[in-house]
Amino acid sequence: GFSYVLSPLTCLRVRLPVLILVLEVLLLLLFSLFVTYDEHAHALAQTNATDHMKNEVYRVYPFFADVQVMIFIGFACLLAFMRLYGFGGVVFNFLTATFSVQWAIIIQGFCHFYHDGKIHIGVFNFINAEFACAVVLISFGAVLGKTSPVQLLIMALLEIPIFAVTDWLIVTYLKINDAGGSIVIHIFACYFGLGVTRMLYRPSLNDGHANLTTSYQSDILSVLGTLFLWVFWPSFNSALTLPGDDQHRAIIHTFIGLSSSTLTAFALSALLDKKGKLSMSDIQNVTLAGGVTVGATVDMMVTPACAFALGVVGCCACMLGYKYLTPFMATKLKIQDQCGIHNLHGLTGLISTLAAIIAILMANEDTYGLNIQPGEGRSASQQAIYQVAALGLALATSVLGGLLTGAILKLPFLSQPTDDYCFDDRVYFEVPNDFDAASTPVN
Amino acid sequence: GFSYVLSPLTCLRVRLPVLILVLEVLLLLLFSLFVTYDEHAHALAQTNATDHMKNEVYRVYPFFADVQVMIFIGFACLLAFMRLYGFGGVVFNFLTATFSVQWAIIIQGFCHFYHDGKIHIGVFNFINAEFACAVVLISFGAVLGKTSPVQLLIMALLEIPIFAVTDWLIVTYLKINDAGGSIVIHIFACYFGLGVTRMLYRPSLNDGHANLTTSYQSDILSVLGTLFLWVFWPSFNSALTLPGDDQHRAIIHTFIGLSSSTLTAFALSALLDKKGKLSMSDIQNVTLAGGVTVGATVDMMVTPACAFALGVVGCCACMLGYKYLTPFMATKLKIQDQCGIHNLHGLTGLISTLAAIIAILMANEDTYGLNIQPGEGRSASQQAIYQVAALGLALATSVLGGLLTGAILKLPFLSQPTDDYCFDDRVYFEVPNDFDAASTPVN
Amino acid sequence: GFSYVLSPLTCLRVRLPVLILVLEVLLLLLFSLFVTYDEHAHALAQTNATDHMKNEVYRVYPFFADVQVMIFIGFACLLAFMRLYGFGGVVFNFLTATFSVQWAIIIQGFCHFYHDGKIHIGVFNFINAEFACAVVLISFGAVLGKTSPVQLLIMALLEIPIFAVTDWLIVTYLKINDAGGSIVIHIFACYFGLGVTRMLYRPSLNDGHANLTTSYQSDILSVLGTLFLWVFWPSFNSALTLPGDDQHRAIIHTFIGLSSSTLTAFALSALLDKKGKLSMSDIQNVTLAGGVTVGATVDMMVTPACAFALGVVGCCACMLGYKYLTPFMATKLKIQDQCGIHNLHGLTGLISTLAAIIAILMANEDTYGLNIQPGEGRSASQQAIYQVAALGLALATSVLGGLLTGAILKLPFLSQPTDDYCFDDRVYFEVPNDFDAASTPVN
Repeated sequence: GFSYVLSPLTCLRVRLPVLILVLEVLLLLLFSLFVTYDEHAHALAQTNATDHMKNEVYRVYPFFADVQVMIFIGFACLLAFMRLYGFGGVVFNFLTATFSVQWAIIIQGFCHFYHDGKIHIGVFNFINAEFACAVVLISFGAVLGKTSPVQLLIMALLEIPIFAVTDWLIVTYLKINDAGGSIVIHIFACYFGLGVTRMLYRPSLNDGHANLTTSYQSDILSVLGTLFLWVFWPSFNSALTLPGDDQHRAIIHTFIGLSSSTLTAFALSALLDKKGKLSMSDIQNVTLAGGVTVGATVDMMVTPACAFALGVVGCCACMLGYKYLTPFMATKLKIQDQCGIHNLHGLTGLISTLAAIIAILMANEDTYGLNIQPGEGRSASQQAIYQVAALGLALATSVLGGLLTGAILKLPFLSQPTDDYCFDDRVYFEVPNDFDAASTPVN
Repeated sequence: GFSYVLSPLTCLRVRLPVLILVLEVLLLLLFSLFVTYDEHAHALAQTNATDHMKNEVYRVYPFFADVQVMIFIGFACLLAFMRLYGFGGVVFNFLTATFSVQWAIIIQGFCHFYHDGKIHIGVFNFINAEFACAVVLISFGAVLGKTSPVQLLIMALLEIPIFAVTDWLIVTYLKINDAGGSIVIHIFACYFGLGVTRMLYRPSLNDGHANLTTSYQSDILSVLGTLFLWVFWPSFNSALTLPGDDQHRAIIHTFIGLSSSTLTAFALSALLDKKGKLSMSDIQNVTLAGGVTVGATVDMMVTPACAFALGVVGCCACMLGYKYLTPFMATKLKIQDQCGIHNLHGLTGLISTLAAIIAILMANEDTYGLNIQPGEGRSASQQAIYQVAALGLALATSVLGGLLTGAILKLPFLSQPTDDYCFDDRVYFEVPNDFDAASTPVN
Repeated sequence: GFSYVLSPLTCLRVRLPVLILVLEVLLLLLFSLFVTYDEHAHALAQTNATDHMKNEVYRVYPFFADVQVMIFIGFACLLAFMRLYGFGGVVFNFLTATFSVQWAIIIQGFCHFYHDGKIHIGVFNFINAEFACAVVLISFGAVLGKTSPVQLLIMALLEIPIFAVTDWLIVTYLKINDAGGSIVIHIFACYFGLGVTRMLYRPSLNDGHANLTTSYQSDILSVLGTLFLWVFWPSFNSALTLPGDDQHRAIIHTFIGLSSSTLTAFALSALLDKKGKLSMSDIQNVTLAGGVTVGATVDMMVTPACAFALGVVGCCACMLGYKYLTPFMATKLKIQDQCGIHNLHGLTGLISTLAAIIAILMANEDTYGLNIQPGEGRSASQQAIYQVAALGLALATSVLGGLLTGAILKLPFLSQPTDDYCFDDRVYFEVPNDFDAASTPVN
């Protein structure tokens, strides 16, 4: 085996099992006390007269399965882009996602699905929980390689409730249009993650780090992750829309927006490179910008051309963000955004929010018919104000929650890697003999 | 090219084509004589009055597609974990699975779908055949790297009928609860595979083998296989349940069980490692234990908390099995279980069987309503006895069948690799120039 | 980074952004002027009385998603088989596919979905567009590694309209049986690609090229692409059939045909290799032959045994093509078919066409019932003549279109790589430090 001597500070032997044991006892207790089947999953609610094929599971399960591929395979591969942190990218994504979904089932259960003293669950809840999980994984992108699995679990433990309450306030009281979750999911996740990474600021990393490179294989793996996300993103953006034409439009817009942002990303990647070559990092990340940018208007009658334009605009903002904003934030604002989530989820989310406000102000009965529902007899401009309020709420809770969470993650005994051993699988994994150790000097 | 001189004994040039030709002639003959379309696939059975969207294909095809991903991609990647046996893992899985499914369509056809002198097929049969195929692939795990493709095809040729008859006896006469196939699939497959590997015992392998290591890339590929299996396992466990709430519960329980076993696997992996690090082998295998453990009760009203607990218990058994039982079996019982299928499918299957018996004994009309069906007017305790009988039958036929099959696989001329060249792609493949040969000393 | 000095002739910095900008302005203009929602996606067409679950999206989206996986992941991995061209295989596939689908939505829109001054789109159009995209990607296979992304986009720009018009003529006037697209898709794509590569003939490549090798990892990645195509091919072949038993049979036949061609490929691979070993190239390509060969008869009542036989026959033709025809075409006919698309799509397509003619001549009311529809009161032999006419039309337009397109691609300023830098990711990508440069001598 490998002769690297592990620092006792990063050893997982006691900390990780103890934390997981506590979390599992907590989950099991809550499942035992509060969780039961919903009416589509409970034998007593389904009589002999029930048409079994009308069970909600047949409508929602295909979307759930697609989102699972995004969460557990797409994110996993995308995050495995570093040469020496492939295990970390794939495996910590797996751990964090698994816990986040279970925890979200409980927390969202109390917010949305609690009645008669029980949380009623079915696959529909699981989709909601995977959205909460996506929030955590996006935030994870800001601190990838700089956090231990213990820290990641604690981040999920804190982020899920803060997200769920924010989401519940927005859905219940503000009733905004945001089918693809541009505000609720992407903006919240982004600014939460930036808050965390601000607190975990490591000055030495601004001088670069020997491990911060890709390998030929890790670049290919990561772009495959992009492709899995790309392929199933229409399912993500449409999973929670109204069935019928709304859901249909969500699929159409997402596909068109992703396509135009992909084409734009190729153009900008070649244009902004000194040698006129394509950068794999751009292909891996910036191509996806359109999926977020169409989010808040994804089910509206905004026209396919508008989805196309949104993809282009979102992609430009995302690309310029990677080029100029991320380095600025790292050096000047002490916000080290490892995967550039502010570009892919923050800037695009803000554009999407703005687009939704414009679309709401322009909506009329000529395009929607009598079905137009700006929510509870609100006028279009009133609805626009609610959209802005939701944005403000999401920004406030995410930034505060992220800073608070980051402060807690700085506690000692959470197995955080030292600066030298960031982005290095040897810290937390038994690695095979061909692990490329030569190029990483051990201090 | 590569200068490795192949032993004539392992050459596939005549043996593999001849065997496949024989098998193909056999299959083509049987397809020609006996196979026709079922009522959902036959033009004559579908009149103009038929609502085409009510065709069974729309209910079963999505589950079939998910299981195909598990079989052909999930298993393939998972089995490719060895540094020098990536081709073998992916490609022999492909070959064995393809033949197994076609052969199972015929054999199961005679058992279950034969009337009016014909086997009537549709996508529903294909799902059943993929389950039989999964049985063969699980057994394959016990002998991975130690068998030639000729041997694997012969194993499939023999295992499919023995499995199909066992399955038919259990389904037709014993009528047990085992929606996820914990008894019928996992226990049968496990003990069949152990029987085969017992007969193919190679003393020298107990001293270790230079090829028995992973590489950084093979570990990542393998864990991606795990993730594909993980993501689609709910489809596997629910594919053959009753439609409606039963199928819904099967999805719910599998997802929860897998989640809790995944969390547990991370905890135990760090806890049991001397240096407190995570082992990729644990992440690749032990995380999946929950999928098997919930199998026999997967459609019952056992509560979500119970699924959670089953995942934890199954994972613990599986992990301890890998740690202590597999080495013991190899050295003391001469059972060399290459992928540890006894831990992931055997121990978990036994726990699942026990759980189903308890669940049956505790089932009552308060939870199930009047729909409770312990099968043909049996009492709960009578049904429990039938479950035990099914377990006994599966154990008996699998052990005997495995030993018999192993004895046949020891025949000469089946291209079996020598001890030195186990787990080595050079034996059966033209390998590219970068194939890592340096570290494998040629005797 | 890497010190390779890029030739200004292959630099993408101006050419690619300018071309993409032009294409995006064109697309955005056409989307703005002509594209609106179809009746399943338009809010006005869906009244409160509409059953939202009857929206066409629920029938077609699952097939669309499966085809997306084939296009964006299956093709991508399959084309990444070269040691030094993994980025190119995955990423140029991504770029070309994305543009092709958007362009096809417009072009096919004018052909098939244009009324009241607008192209009406929904997910159904997207499936059609992905089929057109598959055509471009198959043709791409002939020139893989020898063309710049600029050339590929221009190829797509030209091929899509030529294909769409051919397809429209065949569907509207000839009304042939070709559910799997063996004639319309595979034969057209193949001969178009051969026409292009004939015009781009590079004599020096017939002497071999140092980059034309695989690596252990690239071979595994490529076979995973094969498996993704294999698993979802039934969805591809059945996506545009009539719903009900026709679609059901298309799935059945594709699965059986792929299985028999896979078994045959293993047999022939070992048989035709001097050392009796398996070749990964055969496993990657020849196993898929059955998917094409069953295409033209895929929804007919041809019996499962016939699908099995078609898979075997198609596989034999494909394998012999790779072994003998491809080298012959390269040296004698100056047609350098990089991925051997003539074997996998051309020969198999021709066999499928012939099989369909025979099946049409043998069709009768005993097998189909009164539903038999040879098209507009045609007799069986008349229908057979139309099939031949469609073949002739597809051959003519594809060869001429391919030659014309190839001639245009020879224009200077299209960033075409020099002979030395064919199949080399350094030309168009920033590559990581571990990119294997040592073995490629720089002239």
